[in-house]
Amino acid sequence: MAVKGIHHLGVAVGDLDAAVEAYASLFGAHVEHRETVADQGVDACSLRVGESRVELLSPLGEDTPVGKFLAKRGPGMHHVAFEVDDVGFELDRLSAAGVQLIDERPRRGMFGLDVAFIHPDATGGVLAELVSDG
Amino acid sequence: MAVKGIHHLGVAVGDLDAAVEAYASLFGAHVEHRETVADQGVDACSLRVGESRVELLSPLGEDTPVGKFLAKRGPGMHHVAFEVDDVGFELDRLSAAGVQLIDERPRRGMFGLDVAFIHPDATGGVLAELVSDG
Repeated sequence: MAVKGIHHLGVAVGDLDAAVEAYASLFGAHVEHRETVADQGVDACSLRVGESRVELLSPLGEDTPVGKFLAKRGPGMHHVAFEVDDVGFELDRLSAAGVQLIDERPRRGMFGLDVAFIHPDATGGVLAELVSDG
Repeated sequence: MAVKGIHHLGVAVGDLDAAVEAYASLFGAHVEHRETVADQGVDACSLRVGESRVELLSPLGEDTPVGKFLAKRGPGMHHVAFEVDDVGFELDRLSAAGVQLIDERPRRGMFGLDVAFIHPDATGGVLAELVSDG
């Protein structure tokens, strides 16, 4: 797979504003973009941390994936996103290889990017997202 | 803080060889370096995934931090490492600001780098490592 690198680290938080402040003071992070992604049930805030990116995710409700994650595991790292050339192409390749996917087709994510999630059972417990320009 | 970016994502695994194989086939990852870090109680394997780095960690025993993590939470993302200019300098700054640290002084980590961990209570549940050239 043509993975270019880590696009962002997704972190589940209870209080988005408090987390933004903590990442700013601890790591010099600054807000790049803030968006409600209804499709994923989150208020999301993309931070730049040096040349990298951390995406803070606050759930819109308890029944959302991130809401359930917080209830079960508490705040912390939720997923890692890898940037690829073409999410649709990679999904076809992974599907043909029998890899367990959460999304069979790309969805529209933050920044209007194409995104799709691979099932953690396929990656040894890591929820991995693929991201490409739509 | 002068964070340059994410140095690596640390992932706890049960079977190092199986994980290396999975990351190779899923993401085109290749092995950069493999090392037993007795001080941290792990067999570690650094993978390049595009321009980024994933560090797979297999515990040397059940009583190690990663061994306890696996027993409690199962395999998955364990920590994120941020690259800085000088770990010792940043620890002094964080300590003066009252931030809860795991390591008050830099330790010698993989590749001979200076490393130190910040307590997850200070970061909203994320175990964060700082890394700099020793």
